[in-house]
Amino acid sequence: MISLSERKDLIRAALGQVPLDLRIDRVQVVNVFSGTIEPGSIGIKGGRIVTPYAADYDANVVVDGQGRFALPGFIDTHVHLDSTLVVPEFLSQLLLPRGTTVMLSDPMEIANVAGLPGFKALFHSIEKLDYHIFLEVSSRVPTAPGLETTGGELDLADVSEILTWPQAVSLGELDPSKVLEMRDEYLLKVEAALRLGKICNGHAVGRVGKELVAYACGGLADDHECVDYEEAVSRLQLGMAVLVREGSTERNLDPILKGVVENGTYSHHLMFCTDDKHPDEILEEGHIDFMVNRAIELGLTPMQAIQMATINAAKHFRIEHLIGSLSPGRWADILLVDDLQHISPNQVFFKGKIVVEDGKYIGTLPKPEYPDWLYKTVTLKSGNSGSDFRLEAAGDQAEVWVIDLFPDQIINTRTQDKLRVIDGAVAPDPERDILKLAVVERHGKNGNIGVSFVKGFGLKNGALASSIAHDHHNIIVAGTNDDDMALCAKTIEEMQG
Amino acid sequence: MISLSERKDLIRAALGQVPLDLRIDRVQVVNVFSGTIEPGSIGIKGGRIVTPYAADYDANVVVDGQGRFALPGFIDTHVHLDSTLVVPEFLSQLLLPRGTTVMLSDPMEIANVAGLPGFKALFHSIEKLDYHIFLEVSSRVPTAPGLETTGGELDLADVSEILTWPQAVSLGELDPSKVLEMRDEYLLKVEAALRLGKICNGHAVGRVGKELVAYACGGLADDHECVDYEEAVSRLQLGMAVLVREGSTERNLDPILKGVVENGTYSHHLMFCTDDKHPDEILEEGHIDFMVNRAIELGLTPMQAIQMATINAAKHFRIEHLIGSLSPGRWADILLVDDLQHISPNQVFFKGKIVVEDGKYIGTLPKPEYPDWLYKTVTLKSGNSGSDFRLEAAGDQAEVWVIDLFPDQIINTRTQDKLRVIDGAVAPDPERDILKLAVVERHGKNGNIGVSFVKGFGLKNGALASSIAHDHHNIIVAGTNDDDMALCAKTIEEMQG
Repeated sequence: MISLSERKDLIRAALGQVPLDLRIDRVQVVNVFSGTIEPGSIGIKGGRIVTPYAADYDANVVVDGQGRFALPGFIDTHVHLDSTLVVPEFLSQLLLPRGTTVMLSDPMEIANVAGLPGFKALFHSIEKLDYHIFLEVSSRVPTAPGLETTGGELDLADVSEILTWPQAVSLGELDPSKVLEMRDEYLLKVEAALRLGKICNGHAVGRVGKELVAYACGGLADDHECVDYEEAVSRLQLGMAVLVREGSTERNLDPILKGVVENGTYSHHLMFCTDDKHPDEILEEGHIDFMVNRAIELGLTPMQAIQMATINAAKHFRIEHLIGSLSPGRWADILLVDDLQHISPNQVFFKGKIVVEDGKYIGTLPKPEYPDWLYKTVTLKSGNSGSDFRLEAAGDQAEVWVIDLFPDQIINTRTQDKLRVIDGAVAPDPERDILKLAVVERHGKNGNIGVSFVKGFGLKNGALASSIAHDHHNIIVAGTNDDDMALCAKTIEEMQG
Repeated sequence: MISLSERKDLIRAALGQVPLDLRIDRVQVVNVFSGTIEPGSIGIKGGRIVTPYAADYDANVVVDGQGRFALPGFIDTHVHLDSTLVVPEFLSQLLLPRGTTVMLSDPMEIANVAGLPGFKALFHSIEKLDYHIFLEVSSRVPTAPGLETTGGELDLADVSEILTWPQAVSLGELDPSKVLEMRDEYLLKVEAALRLGKICNGHAVGRVGKELVAYACGGLADDHECVDYEEAVSRLQLGMAVLVREGSTERNLDPILKGVVENGTYSHHLMFCTDDKHPDEILEEGHIDFMVNRAIELGLTPMQAIQMATINAAKHFRIEHLIGSLSPGRWADILLVDDLQHISPNQVFFKGKIVVEDGKYIGTLPKPEYPDWLYKTVTLKSGNSGSDFRLEAAGDQAEVWVIDLFPDQIINTRTQDKLRVIDGAVAPDPERDILKLAVVERHGKNGNIGVSFVKGFGLKNGALASSIAHDHHNIIVAGTNDDDMALCAKTIEEMQG
């Protein structure tokens, strides 16, 4: 929010009583609010825009926009920051050259590991960044209550508290089952958000017909899981905005926007998101800029595509007074670009400070500073010894469920198989590529270990483990033998993830 | 807001687990959210829309829409209810046949007379109506502090409290001087609204250039005072929505929308309001329907004009989850009309109940029930006696200021004139149409009386008084002699206004 003295400084500058901090002259203002492109001069005071038509204002610093187009910074409307595998402090150098100045983030991973204190620690750090993070407050921590143990939980009271933070813009993606089963906790989380004037983000994977209607009736305002035009239209028809997604694995832009262009679909309730996109791909391919450019290639007008990346998103999330257009009082997050047919920011300003020059990040990455305890979240109560992974059985052979993996797919199936019983325990069969798979509780809570089998992993010796295991981030370990699986888990505890 | 059990009923109906209350079959759904018009069947449960495509749902009651177009109810985005001179209970019969189901109202008059208790009394009554009232919380009560005495005040604490009410959608029109003078009280009222996720309505009468920029920098989100296209564009360019007004005296629609049509102006940040429109004119000419039809005549598409009257307004005021489209979970406020080129509602549903049939209001007007004290707000501490109006002066003649009236205009000027002094007091001169004009404090506070003179009123004998005197509603009385002026004031006290 803006303080009283900041507000007065802004008004004084607007009245011409004090000079602007900065004036960017000779630009073509892409005014997404009025839908026009006109020559202008952007006046800035205290990091905020005074007016995009500031030619007759004095300024302490004047820079030449060299006739470039001036756009508002781009907004990623749904992203799991944690999934970038990079601390927020380091993301600036990836995002800003691409023109993304706003991340609407649901940090459900840190909440699953470290609960409300983790959420607060992350929030504390984001105030120092040179891009904006607004919070989509995680609605389902734990994601699968009763199935796995988590390090933290965000119950109704926690969610209600976080929703009051000024940086909280919405209740984060609520999965349909919780709405369709009409579970009090989740419906009350929806009401908590609505009561605070905030929206609720949807996540309507594959839902159609009456289930989709019921989900919309649950108060969900959007969906970022549409995979084709037909799905997108079915959401729009039910009053849900569509967050067109183009992430590392989910590629939904082309099928949706081809339909939008062909049918001349009203684009006001369309916007962009990445959901999960890895840093190497942001670096090579791009971020929201990639989507804007692709939308233009497909036949949307540059104004439409830029509105999707800016004002449409800001209005949907009810923060159009802060970001999303080059209008008075909004943060001075500005992209200067040479070509509206292919947008590649030459310069980027964040809160009126230049952070990208000649397409290169020139800001100073803030030093990540998190509390010590946040680096110490792996505590094993079991899993240190091979015997912890032992699955006892009688006889020579046991019938077991085996998870079947498919290369490059998120989906899997299960089949029944028979495995040998050796020394009273079911043994994996690496010869047939059937490994033991275990989830080891790592939050120091109860030492639970779940054991199963997996086919298609391809490991011949030893074991492999990860503490990135969505959404609860217990240790998941696949192995050919119990001792190596225990070694993996122990090593992750030593490394602290 | 929706209760948990209402939400569950809605979801159950959406899942088909319980029948709909009502299904309106065979309609062409004007879907302002997706921008499409398609055949549909509107399903309703608990007064809310389940889906506009409900053909495969069971319903307790089915009505035939006879192929008519189904539109969301219209929204008046800025209106002073009190200026209709009719209690809200009686407005239904005027508004609903015209298709207006939502009034966004700034009840500054009652606040000036009766303060926060008056505001609350009005609010209590509006819950019984068959149209929606949302509150634009009066930002300036008193309007002219220090100049006149009011019966009530809404200070920062009062305004902050009212803004938390779920029916409060914004801080009501803040006049520019208070922003440009950077007065703490008003800037803090703006922040109070923004902090609660609500917007601030503007009132930028005639402001241009740096003053307009400064006003926009004050956090004001819109303006309803634009008189021509040029003014409207100047607001849009600065990120302010334009509430196109067509009231009893202010007629701004044609000049603004002609420009919009000629220039193909982006219409998403345009909407409609009446501000002040008298009941006889609503009855004869119409309300928001009149504006929608005129917009279509001028060349906007029916979809654009209807969006201005519905979803544009709902989104601007951040209540698109409640009203503004025929989408799941929104109130079932529905107009059925024969012709999209000239919209004249045949049937109107409010919260799923039919209130207009064959264009006639068929609802039951609720009985107005207000506390007794609200009918007793005129208390004179002086003004009962002719001598209270006496303006003493020495000599034979006195030089005085005289207010000049112009027929049918709100503006006036002042000139100096000479009046006779009789028995030591300045005397009006009815021969030259110069009357005495007084404002008599009627809130029982201090008995102040302000006395001046007015020319052009035309009264030859006696006196005339009114307790409707914007914005503070003291008694204003013009007269040819002091005794008749006192009689007028006394009579108004007896009548209680």
